[in-house]
Amino acid sequence: MRLIAFQNQGQSAIGLRLGQEVVDLTAEGLPATLDALLRAGPEGLAAAQRAGASARTRLPLADIAWLPPLQSPAKAIAVGLNYVDHAAEGNFEPPKYPVLFHRFPSSWVGHGQPLVRPHVSTQFDYEGELVVVIGKGGRYIDKAKALDHVAGYSLFNDGSIRDYQFKSAQWMMGKNFDRSGAFGPELVTADELPPGATGLKLQTRLNGQVLQEADTRDMIFDVATLVSVCSEPFALQPGDIIIAGTPAGVGFARKPPIFMKAGDVCEVEIEGVGLLSNPVVDGD
Amino acid sequence: MRLIAFQNQGQSAIGLRLGQEVVDLTAEGLPATLDALLRAGPEGLAAAQRAGASARTRLPLADIAWLPPLQSPAKAIAVGLNYVDHAAEGNFEPPKYPVLFHRFPSSWVGHGQPLVRPHVSTQFDYEGELVVVIGKGGRYIDKAKALDHVAGYSLFNDGSIRDYQFKSAQWMMGKNFDRSGAFGPELVTADELPPGATGLKLQTRLNGQVLQEADTRDMIFDVATLVSVCSEPFALQPGDIIIAGTPAGVGFARKPPIFMKAGDVCEVEIEGVGLLSNPVVDGD
Repeated sequence: MRLIAFQNQGQSAIGLRLGQEVVDLTAEGLPATLDALLRAGPEGLAAAQRAGASARTRLPLADIAWLPPLQSPAKAIAVGLNYVDHAAEGNFEPPKYPVLFHRFPSSWVGHGQPLVRPHVSTQFDYEGELVVVIGKGGRYIDKAKALDHVAGYSLFNDGSIRDYQFKSAQWMMGKNFDRSGAFGPELVTADELPPGATGLKLQTRLNGQVLQEADTRDMIFDVATLVSVCSEPFALQPGDIIIAGTPAGVGFARKPPIFMKAGDVCEVEIEGVGLLSNPVVDGD
Repeated sequence: MRLIAFQNQGQSAIGLRLGQEVVDLTAEGLPATLDALLRAGPEGLAAAQRAGASARTRLPLADIAWLPPLQSPAKAIAVGLNYVDHAAEGNFEPPKYPVLFHRFPSSWVGHGQPLVRPHVSTQFDYEGELVVVIGKGGRYIDKAKALDHVAGYSLFNDGSIRDYQFKSAQWMMGKNFDRSGAFGPELVTADELPPGATGLKLQTRLNGQVLQEADTRDMIFDVATLVSVCSEPFALQPGDIIIAGTPAGVGFARKPPIFMKAGDVCEVEIEGVGLLSNPVVDGD
């Protein structure tokens, strides 16, 4: 299934995308957010499937005002330096243990919504990434069973304000400017993709120019490892997300550097997962 | 005012502490959490004061099951290395810019509740700290007006799993084990303390032994600076907290190291702000 969150007459709603049409699942009696649907457990996804099959009315996809698939995950854990070539371009050693930090939901927008470059910086960088969405919670999850805890996948542009990221050794500020990242367009359930979403081509394009190109197989820590490791300090909950890291080609490591500016369009695409596209605007 | 959150017959409630008694503000028609009270703006605090003055029935403080003052802040921003002597003991340079990371609400308990040492580590360290509670939101808050945005203060034990903290350069994991930190006992409104809560004695004691002793005046970045800086990447919201950093004397930097273990009692005390005391237990 390809599940979306969208705005319907000012209210949040969820839908099942079928080609160029969307079944309004909220109108069929399901919750208004995918966060709530996932918290309902496997029955939530089963209900979405049933409602999608029986619904008579469909909305045209072109009319949809997208929201981020998840709007209030308890935890949004981002992974740094998870591709060997990206670690090297930033002059970092490839990590022996996942490098993890956190993004607040206020730091991302949905598909099609503007990414905001703050007036305090010109160093607004892109990072195309796979998102892992947790469907079944747990603590100390065994790596061998970790993929059973994954509801599905999505895309993220881990937009980074580089000068703020490196003002101190902890990256939190530079990774959390309001509306500086993007998440979407949709939640693709795990059964639609290879196990662990491995072997998929990833591209990031700025105004059509390919700036990042990789295969998800090249992640240093694969999806099962990330789920297992991220469940050690805390119990993961349904709807938590893991933003799995970016490959080489980011803007600040280029000579000369490339940064995003108002009027640009940044796209992240992963084979089978979708295409996340956002314009860039100047803002607070 | 000294405001508390507590559990009343399985439900969350808030109260005004008057000496050894508590007025149940929720029973007087106010919200069930201080998070909600702060979101109501200055009127929320004014209503608490009125209800406290008029209420006839009071609960004995000794019967209170404490909850953390705030249970779901949108942002809980912790400050690393904010005292020169603490930076030095860990072989860090004193920072020129605040070192900021994030704690999930799942990582803390209230006053009197057990701190949990996870079975995967023996390196469970204490850190006594001042908490700044935001009362009025804002972005790019001017340092000269920053204290107007502070509702009050509290205490934090920024419990840290040191081996996990240093598994990678990003501290998130070691600072976020479930129930590894403590927050409380109460929210002391800013009018009860010196401006910026400066000049207050801080002590951390383990089983009665004084292990940290400092003055809040010695913070490298004072409260006004922290509020101003933390409002740059994102709009601060009422109920957000800033956990302002710990002085020298933490366990891992001692020779030999001192770590917390089951049966210990750890206390954090700041003059005028209160005493936060927690037993330590073994757990998941």
